[in-house]
Amino acid sequence: MVGEFDFIARHFRPLAGEGAMELRNDGATMSLPEGEELVLSSDTMVEGLHFLPDDPARTVAQKLLRCNLSDLAAMGSSPRHYMLNVSVPVGRHYDEAWFAEFAAGLAEDQERFGITLLGGDTTGSPSPLMLNVTILGAVRRGETLRRDGGRPGDGVWVTGTLGRAALGLQVRLGKIDASPDGILVQSYRIPSPRVGLSLYGIVSAAMDISDGLVQDCGHIAEESGTAITLFEEALPLSAEVKAYLPDWRETILLGGDDYELLLTCPVEQEEALQTHCRAHAVPVTKIGKVTEGQGVTMLDKNHEPIRFTRTGWQHF
Amino acid sequence: MVGEFDFIARHFRPLAGEGAMELRNDGATMSLPEGEELVLSSDTMVEGLHFLPDDPARTVAQKLLRCNLSDLAAMGSSPRHYMLNVSVPVGRHYDEAWFAEFAAGLAEDQERFGITLLGGDTTGSPSPLMLNVTILGAVRRGETLRRDGGRPGDGVWVTGTLGRAALGLQVRLGKIDASPDGILVQSYRIPSPRVGLSLYGIVSAAMDISDGLVQDCGHIAEESGTAITLFEEALPLSAEVKAYLPDWRETILLGGDDYELLLTCPVEQEEALQTHCRAHAVPVTKIGKVTEGQGVTMLDKNHEPIRFTRTGWQHF
Repeated sequence: MVGEFDFIARHFRPLAGEGAMELRNDGATMSLPEGEELVLSSDTMVEGLHFLPDDPARTVAQKLLRCNLSDLAAMGSSPRHYMLNVSVPVGRHYDEAWFAEFAAGLAEDQERFGITLLGGDTTGSPSPLMLNVTILGAVRRGETLRRDGGRPGDGVWVTGTLGRAALGLQVRLGKIDASPDGILVQSYRIPSPRVGLSLYGIVSAAMDISDGLVQDCGHIAEESGTAITLFEEALPLSAEVKAYLPDWRETILLGGDDYELLLTCPVEQEEALQTHCRAHAVPVTKIGKVTEGQGVTMLDKNHEPIRFTRTGWQHF
Repeated sequence: MVGEFDFIARHFRPLAGEGAMELRNDGATMSLPEGEELVLSSDTMVEGLHFLPDDPARTVAQKLLRCNLSDLAAMGSSPRHYMLNVSVPVGRHYDEAWFAEFAAGLAEDQERFGITLLGGDTTGSPSPLMLNVTILGAVRRGETLRRDGGRPGDGVWVTGTLGRAALGLQVRLGKIDASPDGILVQSYRIPSPRVGLSLYGIVSAAMDISDGLVQDCGHIAEESGTAITLFEEALPLSAEVKAYLPDWRETILLGGDDYELLLTCPVEQEEALQTHCRAHAVPVTKIGKVTEGQGVTMLDKNHEPIRFTRTGWQHF
């Protein structure tokens, strides 16, 4: 028939799993085991804003899935399926070869994370390339992690390390020199969502860091009706990130795209948190505390509040 | 905080329903009653392709929901919730007032169709305005309507009437004069999805007409492994559409955006189909038959095959 249908058949039909009816219908179906509820999240990536036009198609695909997988991880949900919406600019370099690589990247991560394509929509459009995923996961009913459970006295914790992806973007923009091992750019291009942890009953609030540590702490503080104090000295920074201090301090402290989990945890659950994360080989570090009040403060090594020129990623 | 969060709070938080957690989390949750499965469909609308920049914000919102509702209707599913993704071009006329009207249109149709907003994503972007909905419905497990069940001997049926929306687009493009009552433009702007019918066990295949009658019959024929013959004389055309014959014949016969249901029905179920549709005040008309073979043929009043210059809406 016409272009859309061939295009979908070539690139996306091989990715379709149970319930997708081979992408041959108006939609798709999905069942849930008894006692579970559905968790949904959606993220759009726009060329030039969330990825660069010359990023490899394979990593663009994987970043798209992983940003969404990270949202599920933040809600304590196991990923199952995703809907994919693609708006393809006509007459650009997003050609057959590009989409074959894009589909290969999706296929790799489907395998890695145990998910399948369920359905979606493909349309032509003027530039830029726009990619959207709505991801679907499952969780035991009532066991979804939320942002609003932080209580004064809780510790603030973060998985992994911070700042690599933000520096990686600066490398891509030609503003700083690349690290020889390419780890910064790779962190920018392919996040590692923290799926697979089971933190319900341990942590009091959770979200993933996409817009930057301070701004995302602000969300937990606001939704929880509390303040958050962070300690710069406590932040987990890897050696290749520390190498860019002090010049790129603000980029490192505020930069987004980490896709690590930001958690608040009652003191009596700290040991359980550390034990659980160790069992899953996920580093976790205490970086601050929840207090009465509002807003987010980061204290430097002299316990002076740091004044930033901005808070984090601006969407508009 | 930053623009995105205020924007979402102002316009979209009032639309959020159960499971959306007031759009304050990384995602949303949804439960399903026992014995039901989820049905999902997703449609993107691009300014200039699927709506015009000066279409009223309210009707743009309603068309967005209704295209998706129509997909659920075609699968025999009751609508429950939707995820909304919006990419807002900076510096255009899509301002606060526009989005207030857009949200009012969504609110009206939420009420009308019994659905609520579950979550989504808002981002800035270069032009054009891009709108995407993933809609979520429920159906008794195993009772989803599909496109692949048409069998030789079945009749081909369509709800409502055809051609108004396609002519409405031509009015909007200034190519034909408007009908005095505005019904053509209104049909283009605000489709009437056929939700609420229960056709499982009656029809053998179903889909909605979005790309045009002939092209969409082609999908049922292809998925069912059959041919379809349509009779021009049998097509339900309203008086205001007939007024544009014969000049706009191809537009009327091939035009998309009808969002009526296209059904195949075994002869022994014809009475059940008509009775059920009559009970729901939905007109339904037999317009053709499923036969052995492949492809779609439309016969004119002399039973000669009509040769079209194209098949329907081209997505790319």
